[in-house]
Amino acid sequence: MRGRAWLRKEFETAGLNTSIDAGGNLIGRLGGNGLPLVAGSHSDTVPSGGRFDGMLGLLAALEAAQSFREQGVVLRHPLEVVDFLAEEPNDFGVSCIGSRSWAGALAPSDLAILAPAIELVGGDASRLHEPLRSAVAAYVELHIEQGVVLAQKQAEIGVVTAIVGIRRHEVAVLGRADHAGTTPMDLRRDALVGAADFIRNVDRMARQHPAEGPYLVATVGKITVEPNAVNAVPGSVRMILELRSTDESVLLAFEQAILTRCETFLKARGLDWTHSLLSQTKPTACSWHIQGAIEEAARTAGYNSVRLPSGAGHDGVFVARIAPMGMIFVPCRDGRSHTPEEWAEPADCARGAQVLAETLLILDRELAQ
Amino acid sequence: MRGRAWLRKEFETAGLNTSIDAGGNLIGRLGGNGLPLVAGSHSDTVPSGGRFDGMLGLLAALEAAQSFREQGVVLRHPLEVVDFLAEEPNDFGVSCIGSRSWAGALAPSDLAILAPAIELVGGDASRLHEPLRSAVAAYVELHIEQGVVLAQKQAEIGVVTAIVGIRRHEVAVLGRADHAGTTPMDLRRDALVGAADFIRNVDRMARQHPAEGPYLVATVGKITVEPNAVNAVPGSVRMILELRSTDESVLLAFEQAILTRCETFLKARGLDWTHSLLSQTKPTACSWHIQGAIEEAARTAGYNSVRLPSGAGHDGVFVARIAPMGMIFVPCRDGRSHTPEEWAEPADCARGAQVLAETLLILDRELAQ
Repeated sequence: MRGRAWLRKEFETAGLNTSIDAGGNLIGRLGGNGLPLVAGSHSDTVPSGGRFDGMLGLLAALEAAQSFREQGVVLRHPLEVVDFLAEEPNDFGVSCIGSRSWAGALAPSDLAILAPAIELVGGDASRLHEPLRSAVAAYVELHIEQGVVLAQKQAEIGVVTAIVGIRRHEVAVLGRADHAGTTPMDLRRDALVGAADFIRNVDRMARQHPAEGPYLVATVGKITVEPNAVNAVPGSVRMILELRSTDESVLLAFEQAILTRCETFLKARGLDWTHSLLSQTKPTACSWHIQGAIEEAARTAGYNSVRLPSGAGHDGVFVARIAPMGMIFVPCRDGRSHTPEEWAEPADCARGAQVLAETLLILDRELAQ
Repeated sequence: MRGRAWLRKEFETAGLNTSIDAGGNLIGRLGGNGLPLVAGSHSDTVPSGGRFDGMLGLLAALEAAQSFREQGVVLRHPLEVVDFLAEEPNDFGVSCIGSRSWAGALAPSDLAILAPAIELVGGDASRLHEPLRSAVAAYVELHIEQGVVLAQKQAEIGVVTAIVGIRRHEVAVLGRADHAGTTPMDLRRDALVGAADFIRNVDRMARQHPAEGPYLVATVGKITVEPNAVNAVPGSVRMILELRSTDESVLLAFEQAILTRCETFLKARGLDWTHSLLSQTKPTACSWHIQGAIEEAARTAGYNSVRLPSGAGHDGVFVARIAPMGMIFVPCRDGRSHTPEEWAEPADCARGAQVLAETLLILDRELAQ
């Protein structure tokens, strides 16, 4: 809240008409009535997080608005700079609270828990049972990439094509814990060996996915072995399988394929297994129109751009339910994020801010008021 | 110590001449001078352990001695029933304390720590810097199998061929922790996928080991993954590789083969790795003569016997340094041990005790006094 008080003052200093909406979002507005263009991000961060995730997009949007005003650029649309409330995971177990409020995507049970906190920051939870906004011309967000694709492709600007959908399964491989000394190999039902088959198949099948097809990544990031003792044949293994893709049908087909194959190779080892879907979100496409505008803006400014998906979630997932949505990525060092070492070069940040401003100008010319 | 007080009384009731030696071993002796035959095991157990591991061998030896006396069987050799001190892992970090004392295998640094405890049970640590015993005709121990080979082979008696040597390595696979959403498959260095390769290769190579060759088992029982988060590509994995074999050259050859192959397939994935030997014990062969005596005893009594190695450690490892050593295994339910559910059928225990007694009679006839 101290950060927000500072930010609000910056908004006001830049000449923006500043308010907090019912969703607890801090909004600085330039211009009068009509469908607004919206640019922004979030000022919250994770514990021990970096200085760029969220804040960069917010300051770039503020810089664009301030520059327009200083340079006497008069837009056809009002321009809103928005600091969405609580994008990151938090103690309430609900992320993207502010952008969800715009889309009416806060469940009554969430709202009951969130109400006091939303009111503490100046919002009004009683108005959030329906979408707070609908009339928005476009939403554009600048963000650090949080990955290494831009660096690998030597691109200065990333044009985001879509934000991935995520499906997580808990997969349990069930064998039999045995004495590792007295149990010959042919009498074992080693759950970790079965889990190793699973992990390798997930990796191999994801690598076989055609590069020209929709983005797909598949990861076993978490694993728990019982009894996990040096002298015991592992009896059971629990793993989380995480699938992310920009295409829902690819997600479902991959999931079906790995689980079918799993059935075969685990049975062949005499192992049982279970799986359960822990969570799912659907992929969100970015607006083709906004992707084109970002690309044009980058080209005009002389920067290399590449199209790429966002493998991480963003407020755009929810804003896209009520408005055309687009995102601009800039490189960050070694792809690192959610750590104090998170870093983006000032020149990359400046290029991103410039492309954001140019994109807003293009959209202002092209979109209906 | 309460258990031992009871046991000592049982020894005396059976007519054995009972004492505690400098190693803290409780010994009941039948007969006079000369090279003794020794039978026994250990009365200690692990926390929450079962009622058969150790105790069965001790009671069977006592039963044999008592029966000889009741039936007026006069042996050519003295017979000692021995309860070796502290065979199981304990708070001092030294197992097989009593049998080590016979072989002079307690290091001065261990003795310094153990002295008060050894003296508490009636021993004398000052006499343990050299082997306590050397003149022993044979040592025979009956024990539950702690495995499922006898059940699989429908054998009532196991003739132990050797006690395995054990080599443990810590193997670390080092990749790079990355965001599981934003890092495409071809840019990953996933340590868990490399570890999965390793685990599968260990299992496959151990299964390819010829069944007619020396016993070999290889296990990855313990694994630690960092950061072990659902949305992070694993950056590093630490595993313990445990190899057990009755043949030292097989142990070393397998170790060399897996580590050489590891180098190839981990490098191919862009992964680094390290390994370090954590511990090593050498295989211990059982006496051919005693194996033959056990087999003859079983055949005479009409029981099916099979030769098999012991994949677990026993006091025999140390006794074998000073005397011919042999072991008799009897089946235990589902191979389970070191748990309250540990169970051996009374009929199996009786068959084992009978074979132990017959074996002692055969050895008494055949061995020099």
